Amino acid sequence: MIVLFTDFGLSGPYTGQMKAVLAERAPGVAVIDLFADAPSRDPRAAAYLLAAHAPWFAPGTVFLAVVDPGVGGARVPVMAAADGRWFVGPDNGLFALALRRAAQAELWQIDWRPERLAPSFHGRDLFAPVAAMIASGATPARTARPPLSAERRDWPDDLAEIVYVDHYGNAMTGLRASRLPPDARLAAGGQSVGRARVFADVPDGAALWYENSCGLAEIAVNRGRADRVLGLGIGSAVTVEN
Amino acid sequence: MIVLFTDFGLSGPYTGQMKAVLAERAPGVAVIDLFADAPSRDPRAAAYLLAAHAPWFAPGTVFLAVVDPGVGGARVPVMAAADGRWFVGPDNGLFALALRRAAQAELWQIDWRPERLAPSFHGRDLFAPVAAMIASGATPARTARPPLSAERRDWPDDLAEIVYVDHYGNAMTGLRASRLPPDARLAAGGQSVGRARVFADVPDGAALWYENSCGLAEIAVNRGRADRVLGLGIGSAVTVEN
Amino acid sequence: MIVLFTDFGLSGPYTGQMKAVLAERAPGVAVIDLFADAPSRDPRAAAYLLAAHAPWFAPGTVFLAVVDPGVGGARVPVMAAADGRWFVGPDNGLFALALRRAAQAELWQIDWRPERLAPSFHGRDLFAPVAAMIASGATPARTARPPLSAERRDWPDDLAEIVYVDHYGNAMTGLRASRLPPDARLAAGGQSVGRARVFADVPDGAALWYENSCGLAEIAVNRGRADRVLGLGIGSAVTVEN
Repeated sequence: MIVLFTDFGLSGPYTGQMKAVLAERAPGVAVIDLFADAPSRDPRAAAYLLAAHAPWFAPGTVFLAVVDPGVGGARVPVMAAADGRWFVGPDNGLFALALRRAAQAELWQIDWRPERLAPSFHGRDLFAPVAAMIASGATPARTARPPLSAERRDWPDDLAEIVYVDHYGNAMTGLRASRLPPDARLAAGGQSVGRARVFADVPDGAALWYENSCGLAEIAVNRGRADRVLGLGIGSAVTVEN
Repeated sequence: MIVLFTDFGLSGPYTGQMKAVLAERAPGVAVIDLFADAPSRDPRAAAYLLAAHAPWFAPGTVFLAVVDPGVGGARVPVMAAADGRWFVGPDNGLFALALRRAAQAELWQIDWRPERLAPSFHGRDLFAPVAAMIASGATPARTARPPLSAERRDWPDDLAEIVYVDHYGNAMTGLRASRLPPDARLAAGGQSVGRARVFADVPDGAALWYENSCGLAEIAVNRGRADRVLGLGIGSAVTVEN
Repeated sequence: MIVLFTDFGLSGPYTGQMKAVLAERAPGVAVIDLFADAPSRDPRAAAYLLAAHAPWFAPGTVFLAVVDPGVGGARVPVMAAADGRWFVGPDNGLFALALRRAAQAELWQIDWRPERLAPSFHGRDLFAPVAAMIASGATPARTARPPLSAERRDWPDDLAEIVYVDHYGNAMTGLRASRLPPDARLAAGGQSVGRARVFADVPDGAALWYENSCGLAEIAVNRGRADRVLGLGIGSAVTVEN
């Protein structure tokens, strides 16, 4: 299975062109859109989001991950293996947390190059073909790199910021719920919010935080939009109170 | 074929995670996104929309339908068969009209439970695996329920409200066109609108109603947006004039 | 491979209903969403966008292209072959540039009709089945037409207008970069913009134009939205300065 994690959007041409490459080069392999609205041009927030979602997929899954504001510039294309899952994309920190949290991690610089490489669309011309090769059992030309190079040691283990706002206005933090005290409160947007199990446990219009389905602490408003009610967006600070 | 009918959006992670489950558990079965923007948190409007679209699909189709504001609360997970089509989702009235309009309908409570059930995402952990089982010819553990329990007898046979606004701003009502007098006018947003066969039959900028491609009466403006011109949204009242 | 090029959006029901038809009538054929946000109700802008993207796909590809404001009116359904690629859709000029630029082009009126044809949704009932037939090697009933009829001789070879604004706010023109002087500047939204290879070659917030991944001249702002900064939308005029 190849899983797409990008900030490309779905309606426009970029995801489709990548899928056309995958369909030609890895026919029969399932391709899943996980995020097409990953934090735009923000590899740091995206790294926490990807690391939270990846473990939910079976080993062998190939994550084709492109949040790549430096496309065409000096950043290096990389592939990584972390606990049996594969990651393909730019070496801009996007895989830092997935690698750091893995029991076993390897990182390579991708040396393979296509015949035609549009400077502004490595997702289609470089990363998608490499993901297709890996999903098909082939190994693209590559050179080992110390995983440390991608680990962004200055980034924290958990990020006390909003890293994603979903379709309903729920705001995912970069904090794993399992690392928080069970009775912790989260302060964000000037409000302090207590924990609940599900939305239905608080009154309509009330704010809560809960452990979401990928293990992150998520701030929500029952039958409302937390982003609007609390004024939250990607990058908004969150404080743990306990 | 498994058909998705949700209010999850496509760009974010929820539809993708459900599709990953379907790809693993029902490989080779076609999965179609019908609605990812069904009336959000509004099972009643959604029920009329689903009932209008379902008959267009072949018997054997499995509708994985999740508009589920009460997820994690007391509502029961159900599966239903109606004239050979299958429905899987929450028992909040979402299937009421599809069942009521069927010549033959059966309803079951789903007793099967997964090993891991995120309280906030039954779509991924419970409904998607059950839909995959049904599409693969298996029968999940279940208990028969009287279909009446899901039928919401207090909901009308046709709903004189807007139940969906599409990408172009066209506003679908919950009224089947075949049940309306041929020369009926529809009043909505303070205007009375006459019937036409297609948009091109009225001048640019003029409002019309017509029988849409799934049989519902739909209010539109030729080369304009009916939602803005008439001030319509989901839940807006419609009056039949004849 | 069948490639969808429409203004239908993805979240709502129209793309899904077309895909259901394709899955039933051409099982196993890859279906790719290229554009679901092609210029709405604007076949002229869409024609330049389609002509720029089509050559990137392999011969044999079937483009199911529906930007069809006149659906249900007098316009004729057509199919075309251009350098081995197939096009199916309305004869409203949508294929004019793809045909004009091809070394070999043929055009036919589609005579095949389905049993059930919703006047407002030829995409589902007429164009999708025909695309499925072609992708499966069948030939629908048809009559040759002189390609000239679709060529819209009054439309220029390159269009000095914005034809698409992408997810990031980048504005594609209808001008092929290879036809412009290498040092040309483009004036749009009251600004004159110089050429760069990629975004990263200009400072943050600066505007540039560059040859995009499908060969069009595209106006962008590094880490910003050109549509907002320069006030651009589909149809905005562009002037070539050299």
